Amino acid sequence: MISLLHRSRNLVRRCSSVRSFATAPFDRPLRVGIVGAGRIGQVHALGVQRTSALVHCIQLPARDSDPDRAEIIAKKYNIPHWTNNASDVLSHPEIDAVLICSPTDKHAEHIIEAAKFKKHIFCEKPVDLELDVVNKAIKAADDAGVKLMIGFQRRFDANFLRIKKAIERDEIGTVNMVRITSRDPSPPSASYIKSSGGMFRDMTIHDFDMARFLVGDEVDEVYTMARSVNPDVAAAGDIDTAVVLLKFRNGVICYIENNRDSAYGYDQRVEVLGSKGSVACDNQYANQVVVSTNKSVRHDLPLHFFLERYMDAYVAEMEAFIRACTTDAPVPVGGDAGREALLLAIAANKSLAENRPIKVDSVRP
Amino acid sequence: MISLLHRSRNLVRRCSSVRSFATAPFDRPLRVGIVGAGRIGQVHALGVQRTSALVHCIQLPARDSDPDRAEIIAKKYNIPHWTNNASDVLSHPEIDAVLICSPTDKHAEHIIEAAKFKKHIFCEKPVDLELDVVNKAIKAADDAGVKLMIGFQRRFDANFLRIKKAIERDEIGTVNMVRITSRDPSPPSASYIKSSGGMFRDMTIHDFDMARFLVGDEVDEVYTMARSVNPDVAAAGDIDTAVVLLKFRNGVICYIENNRDSAYGYDQRVEVLGSKGSVACDNQYANQVVVSTNKSVRHDLPLHFFLERYMDAYVAEMEAFIRACTTDAPVPVGGDAGREALLLAIAANKSLAENRPIKVDSVRP
Amino acid sequence: MISLLHRSRNLVRRCSSVRSFATAPFDRPLRVGIVGAGRIGQVHALGVQRTSALVHCIQLPARDSDPDRAEIIAKKYNIPHWTNNASDVLSHPEIDAVLICSPTDKHAEHIIEAAKFKKHIFCEKPVDLELDVVNKAIKAADDAGVKLMIGFQRRFDANFLRIKKAIERDEIGTVNMVRITSRDPSPPSASYIKSSGGMFRDMTIHDFDMARFLVGDEVDEVYTMARSVNPDVAAAGDIDTAVVLLKFRNGVICYIENNRDSAYGYDQRVEVLGSKGSVACDNQYANQVVVSTNKSVRHDLPLHFFLERYMDAYVAEMEAFIRACTTDAPVPVGGDAGREALLLAIAANKSLAENRPIKVDSVRP
Amino acid sequence: MISLLHRSRNLVRRCSSVRSFATAPFDRPLRVGIVGAGRIGQVHALGVQRTSALVHCIQLPARDSDPDRAEIIAKKYNIPHWTNNASDVLSHPEIDAVLICSPTDKHAEHIIEAAKFKKHIFCEKPVDLELDVVNKAIKAADDAGVKLMIGFQRRFDANFLRIKKAIERDEIGTVNMVRITSRDPSPPSASYIKSSGGMFRDMTIHDFDMARFLVGDEVDEVYTMARSVNPDVAAAGDIDTAVVLLKFRNGVICYIENNRDSAYGYDQRVEVLGSKGSVACDNQYANQVVVSTNKSVRHDLPLHFFLERYMDAYVAEMEAFIRACTTDAPVPVGGDAGREALLLAIAANKSLAENRPIKVDSVRP
Repeated sequence: MISLLHRSRNLVRRCSSVRSFATAPFDRPLRVGIVGAGRIGQVHALGVQRTSALVHCIQLPARDSDPDRAEIIAKKYNIPHWTNNASDVLSHPEIDAVLICSPTDKHAEHIIEAAKFKKHIFCEKPVDLELDVVNKAIKAADDAGVKLMIGFQRRFDANFLRIKKAIERDEIGTVNMVRITSRDPSPPSASYIKSSGGMFRDMTIHDFDMARFLVGDEVDEVYTMARSVNPDVAAAGDIDTAVVLLKFRNGVICYIENNRDSAYGYDQRVEVLGSKGSVACDNQYANQVVVSTNKSVRHDLPLHFFLERYMDAYVAEMEAFIRACTTDAPVPVGGDAGREALLLAIAANKSLAENRPIKVDSVRP
Repeated sequence: MISLLHRSRNLVRRCSSVRSFATAPFDRPLRVGIVGAGRIGQVHALGVQRTSALVHCIQLPARDSDPDRAEIIAKKYNIPHWTNNASDVLSHPEIDAVLICSPTDKHAEHIIEAAKFKKHIFCEKPVDLELDVVNKAIKAADDAGVKLMIGFQRRFDANFLRIKKAIERDEIGTVNMVRITSRDPSPPSASYIKSSGGMFRDMTIHDFDMARFLVGDEVDEVYTMARSVNPDVAAAGDIDTAVVLLKFRNGVICYIENNRDSAYGYDQRVEVLGSKGSVACDNQYANQVVVSTNKSVRHDLPLHFFLERYMDAYVAEMEAFIRACTTDAPVPVGGDAGREALLLAIAANKSLAENRPIKVDSVRP
Repeated sequence: MISLLHRSRNLVRRCSSVRSFATAPFDRPLRVGIVGAGRIGQVHALGVQRTSALVHCIQLPARDSDPDRAEIIAKKYNIPHWTNNASDVLSHPEIDAVLICSPTDKHAEHIIEAAKFKKHIFCEKPVDLELDVVNKAIKAADDAGVKLMIGFQRRFDANFLRIKKAIERDEIGTVNMVRITSRDPSPPSASYIKSSGGMFRDMTIHDFDMARFLVGDEVDEVYTMARSVNPDVAAAGDIDTAVVLLKFRNGVICYIENNRDSAYGYDQRVEVLGSKGSVACDNQYANQVVVSTNKSVRHDLPLHFFLERYMDAYVAEMEAFIRACTTDAPVPVGGDAGREALLLAIAANKSLAENRPIKVDSVRP
Repeated sequence: MISLLHRSRNLVRRCSSVRSFATAPFDRPLRVGIVGAGRIGQVHALGVQRTSALVHCIQLPARDSDPDRAEIIAKKYNIPHWTNNASDVLSHPEIDAVLICSPTDKHAEHIIEAAKFKKHIFCEKPVDLELDVVNKAIKAADDAGVKLMIGFQRRFDANFLRIKKAIERDEIGTVNMVRITSRDPSPPSASYIKSSGGMFRDMTIHDFDMARFLVGDEVDEVYTMARSVNPDVAAAGDIDTAVVLLKFRNGVICYIENNRDSAYGYDQRVEVLGSKGSVACDNQYANQVVVSTNKSVRHDLPLHFFLERYMDAYVAEMEAFIRACTTDAPVPVGGDAGREALLLAIAANKSLAENRPIKVDSVRP
């Protein structure tokens, strides 16, 4: 059952609230529901505040120890309705679209249910750890005629957008090689790792999508070299240090480097080499200050992790989703992006297991 | 008369709306009114959206050609009440605080009226072009027991805060010298210049405040060397290129460089030399991307002007004002900051007119 | 036959000439002979001028069209003796050491002859394109008890030395991953390519050596992905774009990226990720100047190619060789470094041909 | 009396020795003598080794405690003749030019004597502390028809040359403002300070010359604000921290900032603002390496002091002097540069003493 914070308030809200310079392309703000209000669900709740849309209701499962979790979160973000039951959100008659931020193993189920109720869908990555499940979910959205967007927020980051623009504007000529460096400040917990599907499906999946986004083509072959440096990661059966090579159909070579335990914080860099030059980005810092003493010339660490680094990208991503929901425009990151990135993760895992290059088509169902 | 957008909505709003992670220190969101909705008034309307406070009403004088200006702005920023009459805002019984964003020659009058109605006051810089008027306004706020904060938003910028922190943390030892570089991308219009009180009172006033903020002391003597490069600026009787030297009572030398026509955009840098090292900041850029071709290794221009450069600082400034309004904390930038910065501008003007160093106390009324 | 430029001058020179602050560790300057005076031979002639040693004689084969090539070069670098015949240098009784800068296919032969005449030997890379020939040459030097140093000058570059020092000083903890980016400004001629032994033996060999230098261990397995972008390179049967993965015995993963046609010039970067941080170097520039206009913020291109980039490293390398020749110290880069780097090139070629990872020991004779 | 190291060697040397790619424009290498072999004299001895010229003799006064100082230095730099007596060098029939590196109070006397013997003259800055003495020395060189070059080596630094080129090429439009930052790592000894003529004549003189070099015009007016932070400097009656403002006749404003006790080392930066943009240089570093840990992102300190920072500039300066001595070309930095820079130092001192702007013409004799 959905509790109502303030029914009247809700009614009022409905007809107000363009909260930015942009006018809503709808005649009223888009109303979204959020399924799952963990870390990433809350990021989106916060991000929507900076757009023209409104979060109408939010779901978070109750816990014995904490039955009011949904209510607490709802109040924190000033969301009028809340519930413990995902279906309440997915079927809510007053919402236009859902943001699926539940655990990965619930994504597909929630997509299918949302599609049934004709909601537009934004789903966090990865859609699922299994390809056939992903395909079923995509099909459900397609069949229902609703839009499905996958949460690869890096595509909306100012740095990577500028790199993409450099390619599109022919600032660097034909792309020949792509380097992606992606390091986390510290590895996740053993329990997270165990349900994550492994580093390639959990972390590298963003880099696989970035590679496809920048190259604009599909990958033919994958080879990977990897190791576990951190003993806890090894004990959880995963890797934390890897280089993955991608050979695209058009000949471009991409190499992705991942590490999950970088002492100095989040490291997110891309470099593209073209026939007329290169384009590369450095990390982002909270300030541009340099301190010079008799020891060193130094600046503070880069933005620490994905929340700090990508908050603006999450807002831009949400704006793109809202635009797609309220106009005829297609979503900029469709279900196929989710499927292809997963496919590359599966190929990378197979390459690691068999220590040989793997044709992507050989793992495509 | 104030028109009501949605009275009921207003009532609802009153009891809701913590829009960020922070909980409001009040039992309800602070309600502010904005007097003046030109460029800077709208910046604050936008900024308040990212805080826990609410803009309750906004004022913009009607024009024959455009009587509905206030309404248009109110709807754009989802502000429930609007008016053409500043007094409607300043006396509004439902607001707690006012943001005075009217033309400079109205600032003092609006401060005095707001003080009469016991509103806390945030006033854009400069308070006034004349010292005695400034002093009267400050006294009015003091006498009424309301808080008065002056809009020197640079103090809330991540770069300058980090520099201040380096000083406070003793990262660079005792401060000996301060450099402030402040360049605008292009000069204002001749009409703006004529009513601006001149570059020192309009533009350098921020740098004077920054110097006082960083050094933490008062200035003893001022010398300035200046010129007009741009013929339109010269025709308007102002300068556009200057170096101002400040000798602080504690011996610190500060040199401020200003220019109003920098081809590459907004340039806002500070460098502090101390006994154990230096701390300096570079400009801020929209991205960290470098393009290398056979011509050059280049990046895009810095953030173009103050709106882009200081939007986050405006939000942080507003948060600081809200904190002061809702707790016992004093405002971080009081009326004295406005007065002292103006005093330095007056001394700089006198130094320029007489081509000699001027003791600040000699221009203090 | 060796012509004498100035016999008497030569005699005089013998007892003079400490040309730097350092005093020669010998009782007189070391006298070296140079075999081969092409581009790299002349670099060493110039480099020796900045050390305490003297170039005593130089060899360059005559050409029908240009019989006086050796004499011209000798005069240009003020070298007292010259010849067309390598044996004249290798057997010259008045020299202590030889710098072998002849074509690669002559290196081993010249090493063996120099060893016979008990000269210390500095040989440019690669020693030879074939492992058994390399081994024979190394053995000849060992048997003769002369020192043999291989020309991997990058080990003496200030940037790479600083990176090595960061590792040795434990600034970054245990090394986990190494990235080497190495790009040439333009591909060599087709004729050069054909006799070069291919990109891995000609260009990547420096990166293989750098990887071994930084990791301090031997490689277990190699995988490579490569392509030819430039049609002339392809026509010559070589590649110009590659990523080579190295798995070291101690588990470190190193990835080398090579390209032979970088529009913006020579690109030589290394990054090492350790358990406590990372250390990385950027390219070197002829100046630290930035020009900001309404178009961009830009600096000039990096130092264009290896002569500009590594001139100081060549001098430092020569100083290290002189030190080894005049003291009991071993050479810092011995014959084994030449052999192991070649082995990695051979493994990389095999991996490319067979598209699978190759164990280095499987190609070791 | 001049001792001969090796007369025969000397004769041989005369007809040999082009030590760089460049061919000497003379039919033989230029022979220079060095008067004074302290720190800067030895820098030039070392620098000449990297040019086509030869140091023929060197002078260093004997000390009771160390009568062989000249011989030791001569051997260290492989200079065939040495003496304790400056006149031996200045009148030496076999030399073409002299480098005057004696104490400042001997410069003018040595210039006059060298001119008498028709030697071309390179003299270290400042020519003298008194203007009339400087003028007499310049006149002596003029009357004798010999070339006189002043040692403002910064004009030959790659960074400042690139800035000058940006101006000349119109990369930044008309110059409006110049900033010069010049900081020493630590103050000189009290005894040095006492005979130095004060910071403006000793240190700032380089910056005055740089300002004139970049602006290409003469200064009309000078104002200075200064202080002594270091108690030893204060006790020696000098300042160590200053900002000097220069107004050029063409309207350009230049501000020079000096400090003699910068914790992080030598700091030499210039920034020029023009109508179409700005050009600026950062300091030079021994390497381009960045170390990132959980504490900071840092690089090593800039090159520590003028020897490290300007060694290449000293070589380029010497090459320019040699070119002027061996061709019809005028010296690039004539006696007038020495005189005008001194004049600015005198005006700066007067401004400091009287705390008012000083017209340069008012101190011109």
